[in-house]
Amino acid sequence: MNVWTLALLLAAQDRPAAPPVSPEVHADRKVTFRLRAPQAQKVVLNGEWGGGPREMAKDDQGVWSITVGPLEPDLWGYNFTQDGVVLTDPLNSALKPMRSPRTSVVEVPGEPPRLHEFQNVPHGTVRLHDYESTALGRRRPLRVYTPPGYDRDPNVRYPVLYLFHGSGDTEATWTAFGRAHLIADNLIAQGKAKPMILVMPDGHAVVGPEAREKNVPGFLKDLLDDVLPFVEKNYRTQADREHRGIVGLSMGGGQSLTGGLTHLETFAWVGGFSSAIRDPETTVAAALADPAATNARLKLLWFACGKDDRLVEGGKELSEALKKRGIKHEFRITDGNHSWPVWRKYLGEFLPLLFVEP
Amino acid sequence: MNVWTLALLLAAQDRPAAPPVSPEVHADRKVTFRLRAPQAQKVVLNGEWGGGPREMAKDDQGVWSITVGPLEPDLWGYNFTQDGVVLTDPLNSALKPMRSPRTSVVEVPGEPPRLHEFQNVPHGTVRLHDYESTALGRRRPLRVYTPPGYDRDPNVRYPVLYLFHGSGDTEATWTAFGRAHLIADNLIAQGKAKPMILVMPDGHAVVGPEAREKNVPGFLKDLLDDVLPFVEKNYRTQADREHRGIVGLSMGGGQSLTGGLTHLETFAWVGGFSSAIRDPETTVAAALADPAATNARLKLLWFACGKDDRLVEGGKELSEALKKRGIKHEFRITDGNHSWPVWRKYLGEFLPLLFVEP
Repeated sequence: MNVWTLALLLAAQDRPAAPPVSPEVHADRKVTFRLRAPQAQKVVLNGEWGGGPREMAKDDQGVWSITVGPLEPDLWGYNFTQDGVVLTDPLNSALKPMRSPRTSVVEVPGEPPRLHEFQNVPHGTVRLHDYESTALGRRRPLRVYTPPGYDRDPNVRYPVLYLFHGSGDTEATWTAFGRAHLIADNLIAQGKAKPMILVMPDGHAVVGPEAREKNVPGFLKDLLDDVLPFVEKNYRTQADREHRGIVGLSMGGGQSLTGGLTHLETFAWVGGFSSAIRDPETTVAAALADPAATNARLKLLWFACGKDDRLVEGGKELSEALKKRGIKHEFRITDGNHSWPVWRKYLGEFLPLLFVEP
Repeated sequence: MNVWTLALLLAAQDRPAAPPVSPEVHADRKVTFRLRAPQAQKVVLNGEWGGGPREMAKDDQGVWSITVGPLEPDLWGYNFTQDGVVLTDPLNSALKPMRSPRTSVVEVPGEPPRLHEFQNVPHGTVRLHDYESTALGRRRPLRVYTPPGYDRDPNVRYPVLYLFHGSGDTEATWTAFGRAHLIADNLIAQGKAKPMILVMPDGHAVVGPEAREKNVPGFLKDLLDDVLPFVEKNYRTQADREHRGIVGLSMGGGQSLTGGLTHLETFAWVGGFSSAIRDPETTVAAALADPAATNARLKLLWFACGKDDRLVEGGKELSEALKKRGIKHEFRITDGNHSWPVWRKYLGEFLPLLFVEP
């Protein structure tokens, strides 16, 4: 037995009979957070629900706690700052998948349940893959959602939405934190969205100092050369442009709008959520050059941004460039900021628009 | 934009041109770990490879670092202690799935690649599910591995191994950290294991003070009432006892040996890795009562434990109880302690024994 194992076993034995619970979600949607830290001088709770950091209080067992809320029914990220050190909640197995992991997750259920919640409906499956990217010369992860019933009838083929995450995220974030699979399950059960496959690749094709210039082109090359062929080989897809959509959030929205509008031979349904899109006259010049051809090929161009999100300016700029050429699109400026509650709602609005004639 | 988002954006902008990389695995299998913590007084590295905590050194940019190794080719858990606070590596997206998450993961590749590494062979798929447990009255997560080619021929049915994790783990740990799916891929490609389905449920059926008495029976009721029917409804299984195996590690080894040996009507292939099994005269009394019937029904009973693992005593006790009745089994005492390098090896030895006549 090594020192590490021994330390864990001793820690487990020393654990008191009733270890603290964190987070504890109460019926009134207030939430109590707890951290055992007898030696700490100061512990602060940081939460995505806004209002800034909150100091926690220590009891005589050395457990720090605070109760906040009621919080809106949603998934919220949070962490602690213990004496200046940021840490996730050691009592909570739910972590937000991130490039720089630092966020625990609490889910506050709604009554009735919200669109992103697990409900008593038929469920699809999230599937994990790794593939060798010829475009990037390395192995890459990939998540694929198949809709309910996918395994039942080997003759049915499905349309595909390529769904991209933001710069802080990984290929796991759209399911683990965004709940894209449950949003799709619920919309399909309600008859509001077509059964479809969701493909969630890793958005970080080029990292480090070169990322700013090279990530979007590297990502799109990998998408077209490797991800699409992998998906179309391994899944029963409707493999034509009229059954392919492309959308993403933030960095991924820049990727989806750029990739979609410059590859209308591949994608007919294009979207962007709170998109990091700059200089549309250059980045989507191909689509702007021939408005009639672009309008003829686009089944949908839909993008949205929260009014409190500084990226709303990029959306306005793109919308203006499209308007000037008479290219059909919908640009929605909504309530909200640059955050997942907004993106879950956008996905709930976007999926029903796909693969249907208006 | 809320305060949280603003803080993240500002943090991103303040990032220097070349942020530190951690962990950095060198060609000689030494590994450098780094943590940016300009305000810290002391930072320590804790690693599962043994040798105890190691103090890190700070450079003039406020980045703490240390180089260790060479390490054996394997996956290793580690974390930092910054001024007394344990934290995962904020520069590393790879975390070990745990009930109490506190461990980052570094993979040290082998040359040639080890059995648990991604190799250029056909790959299966890991699938994520949630199901409503009637036995436990709540929703539970489940992971299922399907072997390469599963989606190709809808007429082929597969044997199933039920594979359980340890007390610190979650349903994700056998794949994310144990690499069960890659071990299976590689053994199948080498012709050393039959193509099979692996089913990885959540081992924590009852938590809190009642867990010690009630977790194993609650887990086995959920397994038999809910998990098996879910798997046999949703996957193309060979749904008879001669095509069902059951194995687990530590707490999961107690569950698999107890569950297997008391449910030979359901499982013919039984195993346990470093199993938390106590008092076999009581826990597996059903199998001991009629040795001839047990021998007739058991296709395999294989369990193993490291000689440096204190749970080896439970294994010896079980082996003695079986020997006394002439019940066929293999009990292996191997090198190693209570740790994942041992369990990855055991899985590599166990899978080839399954679903084949000796």
